[in-house]
Amino acid sequence: MSKPLILVSNDDGYNAKGISNLIELVKPYGEVLVVAPEKGESGMSHAITIKRPLRLTKIHEEKDLRIYSCSGTPVDSVKLALNQLLDRKPDILVSGINHGSNASISVIYSGTMGAVIEGCFNGIPSIGFSVCDHDKNADFNLAVKYSKIIFEDVLKNGLPPGICLNVNYPVIDIDKVKGIKVCRQTNGVWKEEFEKRTDPYGENYYWLTGSFRNAEPENTKTDEWALANNYVAVVPVKVDLTAENFINDLQSRL
Amino acid sequence: MSKPLILVSNDDGYNAKGISNLIELVKPYGEVLVVAPEKGESGMSHAITIKRPLRLTKIHEEKDLRIYSCSGTPVDSVKLALNQLLDRKPDILVSGINHGSNASISVIYSGTMGAVIEGCFNGIPSIGFSVCDHDKNADFNLAVKYSKIIFEDVLKNGLPPGICLNVNYPVIDIDKVKGIKVCRQTNGVWKEEFEKRTDPYGENYYWLTGSFRNAEPENTKTDEWALANNYVAVVPVKVDLTAENFINDLQSRL
Repeated sequence: MSKPLILVSNDDGYNAKGISNLIELVKPYGEVLVVAPEKGESGMSHAITIKRPLRLTKIHEEKDLRIYSCSGTPVDSVKLALNQLLDRKPDILVSGINHGSNASISVIYSGTMGAVIEGCFNGIPSIGFSVCDHDKNADFNLAVKYSKIIFEDVLKNGLPPGICLNVNYPVIDIDKVKGIKVCRQTNGVWKEEFEKRTDPYGENYYWLTGSFRNAEPENTKTDEWALANNYVAVVPVKVDLTAENFINDLQSRL
Repeated sequence: MSKPLILVSNDDGYNAKGISNLIELVKPYGEVLVVAPEKGESGMSHAITIKRPLRLTKIHEEKDLRIYSCSGTPVDSVKLALNQLLDRKPDILVSGINHGSNASISVIYSGTMGAVIEGCFNGIPSIGFSVCDHDKNADFNLAVKYSKIIFEDVLKNGLPPGICLNVNYPVIDIDKVKGIKVCRQTNGVWKEEFEKRTDPYGENYYWLTGSFRNAEPENTKTDEWALANNYVAVVPVKVDLTAENFINDLQSRL
């Protein structure tokens, strides 16, 4: 029997600290292929590159580990891995470990989760891991400990079709963690506070900034509550966005 | 009472034929603000621009109609509209009319639907319209006729919180349409067939192409079936991706 084939990606770039930690974590479990953006692609969501060609660059090769950088997005990276670099379907896809939270609606903006959703479309059990710390030197010890538990479970037991996982880690001491809590995506919205500036030629430009407003901070079933209360937050994510319970009502209106 | 405020965006760019048709359609209903990418941003999904600043350019102004181009993505366009150009919340957001299908899982790759989901996050009843024809001179007569019906319904009756609409039009004669069918997102996957080429310097590069494989072509509840059978396909889309029915099972595993 062949070893498990493990596909790894992220959105912070192939040389980020988070993906290095993830590669070390999964290496003992099988044959590993890493395809990740050549530069940071945070906030790229499920974007694909249509209007320019893509490049793959081999960065490193050793027994059971190949690392490539991709000139495109996280989703481009997964597509190229599946179609150009592999001759069998991966047994599992992992993405991250992201520098920064992908909890609540950030799941939809996230390039890390874009890669995960692309894996899920292709029938691969897929997990995104994120620490709630944007620092490029963020501490990944807590994330590595719990990612190993979740990775081993999914490698052994798989995931239902059309469902992938969004795992987020609080920024706390490792001995303060209360456990793993399976949650739902928190309702909320990013409130943008664009910074408006004027360039040397008198024209305005805008930097996107913003802060998250939690619409249900007391709801103990949500991922934001879990993180605020020292749990590892795991949200099972569906790739079928249909609002089933509104179909009949809407049909009767139209 | 003030007129309804209507926000319009797309991913084909402010000067595409599809958005011109949509602007003409909604103009009689209220005050219209258009903010759309300055160039084509197809396949940009829910991407946002973090690492470079954004520009807004006023293209046109007349009574109750302002048109701006934005240097960023469709989602950036909606965020800038809401935060920099408007002092009240729009009553409705419409995006499109897209040149090309956004049925099935294309809802997740689509920049047109990225703008719609961003509107939905912000509590605005939001609709994306797409014709299944990439041609820049596509015929929008059928789309305009039915978009008017759907637009009027949503302007009057709203949509439930956290739900927006993904509307797709078949490419058929207008008198062949059997009606509007509210559906669910078809299960399927894009099978990529990258075109691998070699540049003048001997290096490989890849063009992303692909074709959609429908995993349930006979399922009469799906949007792809509706389109293939001469219906206008409307999928109500949830922005909460939680797979509720897997939470307990997964918690017992971890």
